[in-house]
Amino acid sequence: MSKLSGGIDVGGTKMQAAVVSEEGKVIGQARRPTRTNASPKDVVHDLADAINAAVDDAGVEGSALTSVGIGWPGPVDTDAGVVTKAVHLPELRGFPLADTLSGDVGVPVRLGNDVQVATDAEFSLGAGRPYGSILGVFWGTGVGGGIVLDGRPWTGRGAAGEIGHVVVREGGRWCPCGRRGCLEAYAGRAAMEKRARRAMERGEHTILFEIMEERGRDRLTSGVWERALRHGDPLATRLMDRAVQALGTGIASALNVLDVEAVVIGGGLGVRLGEHYLERIDEAVMPHLFADDRPPAILVAELGDLGGAIGAAMLGHSAP
Amino acid sequence: MSKLSGGIDVGGTKMQAAVVSEEGKVIGQARRPTRTNASPKDVVHDLADAINAAVDDAGVEGSALTSVGIGWPGPVDTDAGVVTKAVHLPELRGFPLADTLSGDVGVPVRLGNDVQVATDAEFSLGAGRPYGSILGVFWGTGVGGGIVLDGRPWTGRGAAGEIGHVVVREGGRWCPCGRRGCLEAYAGRAAMEKRARRAMERGEHTILFEIMEERGRDRLTSGVWERALRHGDPLATRLMDRAVQALGTGIASALNVLDVEAVVIGGGLGVRLGEHYLERIDEAVMPHLFADDRPPAILVAELGDLGGAIGAAMLGHSAP
Repeated sequence: MSKLSGGIDVGGTKMQAAVVSEEGKVIGQARRPTRTNASPKDVVHDLADAINAAVDDAGVEGSALTSVGIGWPGPVDTDAGVVTKAVHLPELRGFPLADTLSGDVGVPVRLGNDVQVATDAEFSLGAGRPYGSILGVFWGTGVGGGIVLDGRPWTGRGAAGEIGHVVVREGGRWCPCGRRGCLEAYAGRAAMEKRARRAMERGEHTILFEIMEERGRDRLTSGVWERALRHGDPLATRLMDRAVQALGTGIASALNVLDVEAVVIGGGLGVRLGEHYLERIDEAVMPHLFADDRPPAILVAELGDLGGAIGAAMLGHSAP
Repeated sequence: MSKLSGGIDVGGTKMQAAVVSEEGKVIGQARRPTRTNASPKDVVHDLADAINAAVDDAGVEGSALTSVGIGWPGPVDTDAGVVTKAVHLPELRGFPLADTLSGDVGVPVRLGNDVQVATDAEFSLGAGRPYGSILGVFWGTGVGGGIVLDGRPWTGRGAAGEIGHVVVREGGRWCPCGRRGCLEAYAGRAAMEKRARRAMERGEHTILFEIMEERGRDRLTSGVWERALRHGDPLATRLMDRAVQALGTGIASALNVLDVEAVVIGGGLGVRLGEHYLERIDEAVMPHLFADDRPPAILVAELGDLGGAIGAAMLGHSAP
């Protein structure tokens, strides 16, 4: 039997766990909410709980796992297994998460950045398979990115691939990160929701928040955006047009630096909006692409919501 | 005696040749003008002539060279030794420059991109020595760039490092490349001169063109800009302030993607304006840098005008 590894993708709202074979096949999965302002102890408990639930779902013994990987939403020190920055869970900054969880689950634990491991998974098992170098763009609440060059992840000093903070307009809109003119200030779901809410408060008509309430949500999920766009909601359409424009510009800037073979677009909005929006992003990239005689492929992520957990599990498989 | 290699940095106006030891020491050099619209045959002749003059200057025999490297101002296919794009010398597009020149000079010839080889030289022998990964920014007529990651050049599919075409402002100024809002549209000497000329024609006072004529130049060289700035010329100051701002934004965007350890700034303007402007560029980078808790070093290129020729010669030294 193939070796099994557990992977957990830690998001702002949920933890997605999976049990994954060496070949990248998902044989069990589970979700747990991410508690806000949880203590390091709580986080370790919840991670172990999510992994155990995925092991149950797989119908194997806990002892079947040979390793666990974590995809963390922020910069990490992979070698030390320490969280470097923790926006959603501030108490975890500097916490030796890998070693502590390893004590709990009884196997080695490796820590990676969530979008980087999701990019690695798309490179090895998903849309990036045919290529040697890719840029992963994860378009959701924020806009994150990962890079694979010549088959190897490029993480810089731990914070490479921050495509959401490539500037698309000097002196432009304020970004949730506190800077101005970042791609994420135009295309991140959090920034778009803030802008939609203000427009509504100013009296602009939109069905975005009606759809949100109908669906029992308290924020504008990717599904809410998709539905409003399908109904031709003018505010949703305008904000999404601006987001697509910004994505095109930011991705083109990154491509002018990296000149990779392909761009894989994932994340909640990326996967939900899919092919049609991809073509529009492609069109928005072209006017700013320097080597426009051979544009890279622009593709939707194939592993969907599970890419992060699969990539996290692969961290364990590839551990020394 | 150390093996000797010839290197030629092909610029828009001149070819700089050097004879370089394996340790990177320059033992001879020569310059030749770059003829506009020269035929491939003329270019090969001029390159061979420049190399021979550098060999004479070194006081060695022509047969002392074991290889020759060329730093070409545009994308090249290094493996095939073929010019991919040739803006200044359009007839050379697709020309097998390496093999043809090799027939002339009797040693293997290797072809590389000019700013990439200059970046490699700064990495191995210049300001980048202490670091494992750098971004080279060559600020002159245009704004070019080169990348070294984990000690190895990253050239993508042949067009990586085009930092001059990172967008700093969507829908912004027209760039000489035909696109809008590129860094080079604000910071390239060609774009700055065009803008200065228009302002003067509109009646704005400036000493830029007086200095140019006094010096017997027909364009605004880096020396002309430096002098006008020293005299507090308001137009020169305003255009340079805007250039520094754009450089800060574009470099920060590239750093958010690459997260390298250091930025080395060379090129005519970079070397001429030096440390003081470097500090100002640094200040312009910071507001847009995502990992701003540990900014990379920002340094002036140490090899000056000869960096390109040295890097080109090193291409030969490192050839298989």
